[in-house]
Amino acid sequence: MAQDKRFRADRRALFQRAATLAATGGLAGEVSASTSDPLPVPDSMRVPGAPVGARLYGQPSAFEGKVVRNVAPNLPQYISASSRTPLQDLDGIITPNGLFYERHHGGIPSIDAASHRLLLHGLVKRPLLFSMNELRRFPSATRIHFLECSGNPSYKRPYGKTASDIMGLVSCAEWTGVPLKTLLDEAGLQPDARWVVAEGADAAGMTRSIPLDKCLEDALLVYSQNGERLRPEQGYPLRLLLPGFEGNMNIKWLRRLKVVDAPVHSREETSKYTDLLPDGTARQFTFHMDAKSIITAPSGGQRIDGRGFVEIRGIAWSGRGKVSRVDVSVDGGRNWLAATLQAPVLSRALTRFCFPWHWDGTPAVIQSRAVDETGYVQPTLAELIGVRGENSFYHNNAVQPWRVAADGEVSNANV
Amino acid sequence: MAQDKRFRADRRALFQRAATLAATGGLAGEVSASTSDPLPVPDSMRVPGAPVGARLYGQPSAFEGKVVRNVAPNLPQYISASSRTPLQDLDGIITPNGLFYERHHGGIPSIDAASHRLLLHGLVKRPLLFSMNELRRFPSATRIHFLECSGNPSYKRPYGKTASDIMGLVSCAEWTGVPLKTLLDEAGLQPDARWVVAEGADAAGMTRSIPLDKCLEDALLVYSQNGERLRPEQGYPLRLLLPGFEGNMNIKWLRRLKVVDAPVHSREETSKYTDLLPDGTARQFTFHMDAKSIITAPSGGQRIDGRGFVEIRGIAWSGRGKVSRVDVSVDGGRNWLAATLQAPVLSRALTRFCFPWHWDGTPAVIQSRAVDETGYVQPTLAELIGVRGENSFYHNNAVQPWRVAADGEVSNANV
Repeated sequence: MAQDKRFRADRRALFQRAATLAATGGLAGEVSASTSDPLPVPDSMRVPGAPVGARLYGQPSAFEGKVVRNVAPNLPQYISASSRTPLQDLDGIITPNGLFYERHHGGIPSIDAASHRLLLHGLVKRPLLFSMNELRRFPSATRIHFLECSGNPSYKRPYGKTASDIMGLVSCAEWTGVPLKTLLDEAGLQPDARWVVAEGADAAGMTRSIPLDKCLEDALLVYSQNGERLRPEQGYPLRLLLPGFEGNMNIKWLRRLKVVDAPVHSREETSKYTDLLPDGTARQFTFHMDAKSIITAPSGGQRIDGRGFVEIRGIAWSGRGKVSRVDVSVDGGRNWLAATLQAPVLSRALTRFCFPWHWDGTPAVIQSRAVDETGYVQPTLAELIGVRGENSFYHNNAVQPWRVAADGEVSNANV
Repeated sequence: MAQDKRFRADRRALFQRAATLAATGGLAGEVSASTSDPLPVPDSMRVPGAPVGARLYGQPSAFEGKVVRNVAPNLPQYISASSRTPLQDLDGIITPNGLFYERHHGGIPSIDAASHRLLLHGLVKRPLLFSMNELRRFPSATRIHFLECSGNPSYKRPYGKTASDIMGLVSCAEWTGVPLKTLLDEAGLQPDARWVVAEGADAAGMTRSIPLDKCLEDALLVYSQNGERLRPEQGYPLRLLLPGFEGNMNIKWLRRLKVVDAPVHSREETSKYTDLLPDGTARQFTFHMDAKSIITAPSGGQRIDGRGFVEIRGIAWSGRGKVSRVDVSVDGGRNWLAATLQAPVLSRALTRFCFPWHWDGTPAVIQSRAVDETGYVQPTLAELIGVRGENSFYHNNAVQPWRVAADGEVSNANV
């Protein structure tokens, strides 16, 4: 309520200055009687536009050509690499498939769904082989979940300039597929079954061991994303989805599920995707992506065009369940106020938050902090480094501060 | 519960026949000890795949090239025309932007967001002119809503073969924009204000009168759809969204909102988008899209490949609020059972339903019937024609029956 009142006061003040703001790039221009033709007829009304059917599969406007996935330049190779979602250009919680982040370990295979097969074997009573048509006949489930690379963001300098540079290895979609539990029930588990080894049909033969509990809880074998069939870079025709678990475990181009009694200690759970701690031991099997958030607007590389009302917008998520609260600070972390969460707030999905701010034109540091339904609070980078030391690489979920300069330029406050 | 039990029994029966079904194209093939190499190494594991960054804006798999918008062939022109969403190929409730249905009246204009302006004037205290950057600074709202053409589907024969042919002028997305109420509050309404006339910047100068109540209730000025900026064919850079109201009122390429005391009786609310009744009068201003549903799988043009368990899947929606129930009949409308609704069920959004069916291989007629939270029940085509006669063209929300032949072929039962 206090916040609502504050916003209303801000907005009132803002609009009382509308006339002057118009000249300095404020929110809206008041039109006086002397304004000559405030709305001239544009060219778009003088000639017919493009015909229906020119594009049977639609594309973004040419005027939005810069809103694309963000790929680091000058990498030695792009086969085991990633592209990042342009978070600072997006609204809502759904990431369009064309902008969904990518992380591949052996490039993007081209697989014909008609010939693809999934083998379910190991410690089961009846090994089963599935075609895609067979999988699609099983009872389906659809849920909205985020997916995030465990290396999002990096602990290491340089930290990046934009929200995409820093935290663009997270996206969110509506996924449809078959609950893995259904197939495990059909195959019948043997008494020693404890883990399931998932293998991809890519050139990396990407392989991870998944605890059986997760497979029986909410794992999905996904064939559709945001309504349409999976894109090639998201595992077409079939991927594993483990809601809330680190991205690389959500095996793409899924071809094998082998039920076993112990993890196989694959490359991706030993030499990679483990966290070296200060005492020389490594954290292994750190599956859950902990609560995290980032302000996406205004964010690094953007400029606030004039003092006055600014809606701070961002996303929050937790691999442990629902986001229960997001706090925002506009004074370098001294004071925090609760942001508004956009409904529906879904478990293990991105949650959009908004926070009304009156920017007075002086330098400021703004940041957000997520709290999830387990009560876990997103830590600062200093707190994380204090616990995990400087050698840790994955699972950085620190608060991301942005610096707002007097001229409105926004930059990363972590340098 | 009864339904759950029935499904489990069906599924059990199904899998007891797994071995024979494998030979006849059933759900899954059991792998015996004598099966030689059930999972040969595919080419995709032998050579690296495509590099990251080859496509900065991703595209569907080439193997899904037939899943595109459906445009009627041999129309005299494609400037005032439509394209339909391929409903039978989609899952979930989100329609990808590339497959969102289109209906244009003067083609698709190409508009630069940087030069686009919205004028809010008429019976207001302060006329206001907005740039897109100014609109984006206002407090935003994001909601998931369907959008549907009032001519979806046609009352007239021929009725079409596929779900897309028949009912593909409906789609659903997550929309982000500014509540229209916020801007009307800022402009200040004069006492006589009752309607708002919205005008598009397309070659049709598409114009509709909107009741003020709707503008103050939940109308949005939308700039983003499914996270990214609107596509050109959806009104880039700005459209009106009137949740639950017929599609053509959701003015695209929005450039003008004029507050008035009475509707202007534009072309699109007199000669078009009115319904001629048997007594010679016409229904005008029939804004709401009433409750409707369709089974999308199995649906016309598809084939059930073998008797046994079939998950009947479809979508339901209502312009009056939430879908409260969907009933499914698999015996030509004699008996109806409640389907399962996929969460979250949102107001004025598509709702996905699923219904477990054991198809015994004999001819059948399957259909769905939506009920919304007002208690309204989707009617049959005969019931609708009985009330509205044969001259009505818009607002057909009749139950859609599909005929399943003994060979599994599915076709439109309305011929």
